[in-house]
Amino acid sequence: MPQLPFITFEGSEGCGKSTQVQRLVAHLESLGVPIVVTREPGGTFIGEQIRQLLQYTPEAGNMAPEAELLLFEASRAQLVREVIEPARREGRCVISDRFYDSTTVYQGVARRLEVDIVGHLNRFAVGACVPDLTFVLDIDVETARARMLRRVRPAVPDRMEQEPLPFYEKVCQAYRALAATEARFRLLKAARSIEEIARDVWEQAAPFFEKLENTARPSPVA
Amino acid sequence: MPQLPFITFEGSEGCGKSTQVQRLVAHLESLGVPIVVTREPGGTFIGEQIRQLLQYTPEAGNMAPEAELLLFEASRAQLVREVIEPARREGRCVISDRFYDSTTVYQGVARRLEVDIVGHLNRFAVGACVPDLTFVLDIDVETARARMLRRVRPAVPDRMEQEPLPFYEKVCQAYRALAATEARFRLLKAARSIEEIARDVWEQAAPFFEKLENTARPSPVA
Repeated sequence: MPQLPFITFEGSEGCGKSTQVQRLVAHLESLGVPIVVTREPGGTFIGEQIRQLLQYTPEAGNMAPEAELLLFEASRAQLVREVIEPARREGRCVISDRFYDSTTVYQGVARRLEVDIVGHLNRFAVGACVPDLTFVLDIDVETARARMLRRVRPAVPDRMEQEPLPFYEKVCQAYRALAATEARFRLLKAARSIEEIARDVWEQAAPFFEKLENTARPSPVA
Repeated sequence: MPQLPFITFEGSEGCGKSTQVQRLVAHLESLGVPIVVTREPGGTFIGEQIRQLLQYTPEAGNMAPEAELLLFEASRAQLVREVIEPARREGRCVISDRFYDSTTVYQGVARRLEVDIVGHLNRFAVGACVPDLTFVLDIDVETARARMLRRVRPAVPDRMEQEPLPFYEKVCQAYRALAATEARFRLLKAARSIEEIARDVWEQAAPFFEKLENTARPSPVA
């Protein structure tokens, strides 16, 4: 049986990636593809505890950038070994809302930690577990910010969401630069309708599912 | 003003290091030395959350060795930046119950993670914050185990304390080997009375406090 792909979605907050994850998952499920869906930070018991500490614990507001980076990597190391690798061994498609590219961008570029260190830690955390296909939803920072604020009101924004605008500007630029570095990336314009983006996502993902047994060439998302 | 030392205590569970930390702290306080006492993992709000996850969370029993290592380093990175470095800048003596040597021994040797990786992560977590003096309390594994079991009954042993005997054998050996590698180490026989060990500790620590203003040469622990 051909190996099903490991697909990740990346982008600034408010870029719409979680919606696109849901759309792709729904489409693959309708085709009978065995899927495991996850997210970062989190996706395991240990990872969700770390997520809570990273994002929703007001007393952790003085977190050192180095500690933040190490917590993201700890969550990732657990996710890879507890969820992603076992799922792939069982022949499932894995789809993750964020993976190590988020750390490259957020901690490496925007927080100005050394890119070398971040790369080193990413490799330690994931081992040989690298995505086959990574969608980067590219959005201008003002649109992302507006969407995000609309979404989180009246809930309390998390630590990342409280960052000032120039932080997001750097994040968006860093994602664009990163998307040019490896063949697995697909940079998609995110300031479009959900339907349009979902169609592009499937167009890019479909070739990875073409050779599946008992699966005719899947039709595009309606 | 001469810089006050950063002193760490290391050793297997049950070696008596926490008792010796208390003894040294009490003695220094009686001499009017400004001290900050801390411990690993923990010592900060973030670190104590991590300690909880590492040691007392049954659902985290399937923690990957890589995730464990990264969590220890995250706790350490925060401790260095939030507690140890500020205290040293303010001219205080810092005493810690465990520091990065614990990770070298527990994760690097006993868990068989690569020593290179562990060293790299230790350096990233602590930066330039290296102890001036490190006591390793050396104990044979049977004695340590017996003390530990006596102490924790009827409480539930933590994740480390549930490890089988050969794990502790490796830990004790690894501490002895490590203590031979740098001048800051003092290897002390721990199968003696609290008083005897405390006297040795102070004999080794006293030279670091000799040049303090307004402090006569401190007398030995009574």
